[in-house]
Amino acid sequence: MVDYSNIKVIGFDADDTLWVNETYFRDAETEFAKLLSKYETPNKIDQELFKMEIGNLPLYGYGVKAFTLSMVECALELSNKNVSSKTIEAILNIGKDMLNKPVEVLVGVEDVLEELSKKYRLILATKGDLLDQEQKLEKSGLTKYFHHIEVLSDKKENNYSKLLKHLKVDPKEFLMIGNSLKSDVLPLVNINAHAIHVPFHTTWAHEQVKEEETNGKTYKSIDSISEILNILK
Amino acid sequence: MVDYSNIKVIGFDADDTLWVNETYFRDAETEFAKLLSKYETPNKIDQELFKMEIGNLPLYGYGVKAFTLSMVECALELSNKNVSSKTIEAILNIGKDMLNKPVEVLVGVEDVLEELSKKYRLILATKGDLLDQEQKLEKSGLTKYFHHIEVLSDKKENNYSKLLKHLKVDPKEFLMIGNSLKSDVLPLVNINAHAIHVPFHTTWAHEQVKEEETNGKTYKSIDSISEILNILK
Repeated sequence: MVDYSNIKVIGFDADDTLWVNETYFRDAETEFAKLLSKYETPNKIDQELFKMEIGNLPLYGYGVKAFTLSMVECALELSNKNVSSKTIEAILNIGKDMLNKPVEVLVGVEDVLEELSKKYRLILATKGDLLDQEQKLEKSGLTKYFHHIEVLSDKKENNYSKLLKHLKVDPKEFLMIGNSLKSDVLPLVNINAHAIHVPFHTTWAHEQVKEEETNGKTYKSIDSISEILNILK
Repeated sequence: MVDYSNIKVIGFDADDTLWVNETYFRDAETEFAKLLSKYETPNKIDQELFKMEIGNLPLYGYGVKAFTLSMVECALELSNKNVSSKTIEAILNIGKDMLNKPVEVLVGVEDVLEELSKKYRLILATKGDLLDQEQKLEKSGLTKYFHHIEVLSDKKENNYSKLLKHLKVDPKEFLMIGNSLKSDVLPLVNINAHAIHVPFHTTWAHEQVKEEETNGKTYKSIDSISEILNILK
């Protein structure tokens, strides 16, 4: 039985925890594969784009702008530097459309935030682009529940350790809630903070973890974000 | 005579305050104009790129990734959608080169940070990409002087007000030091915080302010960052 009575600050992941996101990336990948269908099979295009994104991660980081730049570079490569300006334009538009998407808040989220914000300091902890995340938070109507947004360049143990130091909270006083075992759960457990896992139906390959990484780790996994209210009451 | 005795937290702008940055953008623009020289004059290309950047600002925000995407889009437009894949590739490489640039710390910066960090809490307050800024801070060797990095999606009054609320400091206790009147000085003065202006030899057109905007505003402008030690001693 985990003791949550020390919790003072709760961090929420944003994408796919509060609102739909990964679905839009999957749709974008499908569109990208269509644009380049004369060069390769959809499966091969998917693989190459993923490789390109991972290769560019140290330089570009996360978010839609990084993703768009990787799509452009991938198109050059797949076409053997023979892609048309029209296709490049279509790729830029895929990125712009993603940034302009309405925000679809997931079921139960608002009730949970409203209830928890009465008792805890809530922060949004995300690794996307700050501007994009601020705009999504604005569109979501959820701004009022959050003390502020923390953008992390990555969500590894040392990023969270720095964050807790900066927030002046002890790991035991911090609970992270998110859909990614790799980014929102395991690093927290490893620094003796709390974490609750709320899976989303789609997970980006880069966020998937092998079973041995979760072995012996203690965290709670729940089916719906609403269950948090039972756990923390 | 301004009274700085209440200051507890000092925010430093990063680009062109601690290290060279705008110079690299100017160089990138020159390179971009060369790549597209068969379509337009350098002057026209410069103007069109600037327009594109400003148009994309609400969606892309600041930083090298946004700049790279705007260069690609501008190339499509200037070439009437007839630009070669090789040129697109060269544009992506301009952006990557910028992200890979070594960090050139400006004269006097380290002494100032070392001295001030003994007495004040120093934070880095920037509006670039978080990952890029973190990596530059790392490369600069200045990390140890800063409590943490704050990335702002913009540097307007309400961004600073939110920041101060989040840091739990009163405007009177906060001093911002930076090279941009528009971003690092005027918004602070307007919310009754302190600001010191340290001009850099080059300023991006978007950061330039008209004389009437500075009229009647009280802030200090110094020629070299080292003078801060005299002001705050």
